Amino acid sequence: MTNIFALAIHGGAGTILRSTMTKELQTQYEQGLKDALSAGYTILEKKGNSVDAVAAAVMCLEDNPLFNAGKGAVFNNIGKHEMDAAIMNGKTLEAGAVCGISTVKNPVLLAKTTMLYSGHVMLAGSGAEEFALSQNLQFENDAYFYTQQRYDQWQEALVENKVQLDHTEKKMGTVGAVALDCFGNLAAATSTGGMTNKKFGRIGDSPVIGAGTYANNATCAVSCTGHGELFIRLVVAYDISCLMEYKGLSLKEACDLVVYNKLVAINGEGGLIAIDKAGNIELSFNSEGMYRASIDINGNSIIKIYKD
Amino acid sequence: MTNIFALAIHGGAGTILRSTMTKELQTQYEQGLKDALSAGYTILEKKGNSVDAVAAAVMCLEDNPLFNAGKGAVFNNIGKHEMDAAIMNGKTLEAGAVCGISTVKNPVLLAKTTMLYSGHVMLAGSGAEEFALSQNLQFENDAYFYTQQRYDQWQEALVENKVQLDHTEKKMGTVGAVALDCFGNLAAATSTGGMTNKKFGRIGDSPVIGAGTYANNATCAVSCTGHGELFIRLVVAYDISCLMEYKGLSLKEACDLVVYNKLVAINGEGGLIAIDKAGNIELSFNSEGMYRASIDINGNSIIKIYKD
Repeated sequence: MTNIFALAIHGGAGTILRSTMTKELQTQYEQGLKDALSAGYTILEKKGNSVDAVAAAVMCLEDNPLFNAGKGAVFNNIGKHEMDAAIMNGKTLEAGAVCGISTVKNPVLLAKTTMLYSGHVMLAGSGAEEFALSQNLQFENDAYFYTQQRYDQWQEALVENKVQLDHTEKKMGTVGAVALDCFGNLAAATSTGGMTNKKFGRIGDSPVIGAGTYANNATCAVSCTGHGELFIRLVVAYDISCLMEYKGLSLKEACDLVVYNKLVAINGEGGLIAIDKAGNIELSFNSEGMYRASIDINGNSIIKIYKD
Repeated sequence: MTNIFALAIHGGAGTILRSTMTKELQTQYEQGLKDALSAGYTILEKKGNSVDAVAAAVMCLEDNPLFNAGKGAVFNNIGKHEMDAAIMNGKTLEAGAVCGISTVKNPVLLAKTTMLYSGHVMLAGSGAEEFALSQNLQFENDAYFYTQQRYDQWQEALVENKVQLDHTEKKMGTVGAVALDCFGNLAAATSTGGMTNKKFGRIGDSPVIGAGTYANNATCAVSCTGHGELFIRLVVAYDISCLMEYKGLSLKEACDLVVYNKLVAINGEGGLIAIDKAGNIELSFNSEGMYRASIDINGNSIIKIYKD
C-alpha cells in the first residue's frame, strides 16, 4: 500500500462562457463539483478503492440536476430520458456499461453492478433495467428526472428541430471521474443523459469501453466528454493508453496529442480527464470550457470551469 | 488506383470439431462461406469499394440460416432475436453500429446506413428500427428469423438455464468481413445474433467500434468473433491497430500477440480476421475452429473450418 491517491472529475465540456454565466449559477456549479470531489476523495482517504471512489463521485454528479446525467439528464425527441454509463477497473480490466436506460436513479451504479454481478460487460434498454430490478437498485419515475431547464431546452430544440448536446450552453453534457487509490489501482467512470432531442436510440461514447471510458493499471484511467461520435471513431480513451504503453508517451503528451491534434483534426470538440499510476492528472479540453475539479497526490485541489 | 485487392470473411469461432460435424453440414458451411466470399469479391473485382464489399459479404452470411446473424440469429431468453452489427470505413474513420434490433433483415446494412445517413455512430433498439424505417430498409417478422436448429438450442439452454454463444457446437456465433479495395482503402464489418438464451439486453463486442470491429487505412481492418465481454475489455480490434501504428509490429505479429497471448491470458476464447494496407491477411483464433475464407492479392482463395 502507498500513501499516494488522487481524484479528478468532470461535469461536461463545451461552449461555457463567462459572458453567459450568472454568478449564482457559477457558484452552484462549483459547489456541485466540490461535493462530488468530496464524495470520491473521502473514500480514497479512508483507504477505499478507486472503483468505489469514481462511482461515488459520479453518483453525486448524477444526483445534481445541474449536470446532464441521472437527475439532470436531458430530454430525448419523445420527451423521455435515455441514459448511458460505464465504469472500468484498471487492476482487473473488468468493465461494466449500460445504455438507453430511463428509470434507474444512478446509471453508474447499474454499470458497476453490471461489472460485478451480471457476467457481462454491456447491457441495454429494458433488459438492463430488468437486471437493475433483480439487483434491487433504486428506480425513479419521470417526475424525478423532470427539470424545468432541460424541458425548456427540449422545447426549444423541438422548435428548431435540432439535436443538441446541451442546448443553451452548447455544453457536452456528461459527467465522469478517474482515480488512483492507495493500493496503486486506477479506475474510471462516466455517465450521461446524451443529447437533447436525440432520436433513434443514439448512443454516444460514454458507455463504449475504450472510447469514453477506460482504465488500466499499466497506463492510465480516462473519462471523456464531448461530441461522442468522434470520440468513438478515434477510440479516444484507449488511444491514450496505447500511446503511453506502446509509444512511451507521458500522460500529458498522450492527452495533448489526442485532444489538441487528433480530435481537432476531425472537429471533435470536447475534453477528458485522465490520471496515471503515479497520480499525475490531466484535465484536457479543446472547447471553451469544461467543468472540472481534482485533488492531486499532495492534497491540492482545484475547481475550474473556463479555459483560463 | 492499384490492382491490389483482397477479402477475408469469418462465420464464427469456437469448439468446431470434425467429430461432431456431418459431411453434408460441412459442405453447406463451405458453400455458405464460398457464396459470401464471392458476393464481396465480385464488388472488389469491379473496382468497387471495400465498404460495399464487406457489407455485401456480411449480408450474404446474414441471409444464410447456418450462421448466427440475420436470418440465423439465435433466440434470446424470451424467444426473441436481438441482433448487433457494425461497419467501419478505414479511409475516413467513419463508422456505424446498431445493437438490440429485432426486425431488420440485414443488420449490417442498417449499420452502413447509420454510418452514411444518421449523423451518428451507434443506434440502439426500437430507435434504430425507427431509423431503418425512415431509410426504407427491409423488415422481416419473427417467422423469417425462426429456424428449427436455433429454437432447439434455445429450448435446451432454457432447460439448463445456460447462456451459450451457440449452444450445440459452443460456436461463437458472429460473422464478419474485412477488405482492401483497389483504391487502397480498408473496411471491416461484423454482425451477430449474440448468445442463445441471453438476458438483460446483453451487447457483445461486435457493435463496439474498437472492440469487435475497426478499420484504419494507416494500419488494418479487423473483425472479431468470440467471447465478446473479453474482447470489449481488451479493446481487441483497435489494440491490433495500435500495436502496428505505435509499436511497429506487423499485422501477423500484432494478431499473434493479441489472440494467442493477451486473450488467452484472460481466457478470451475466439478469433479474428484482419487485413493490412498491403493486402496481408491474418485468420487467427485460439479456439478449436473458425469458419473462415479469404482471397488474397494474387487471387488465391482458401475456405477452412478446423485448426489444421
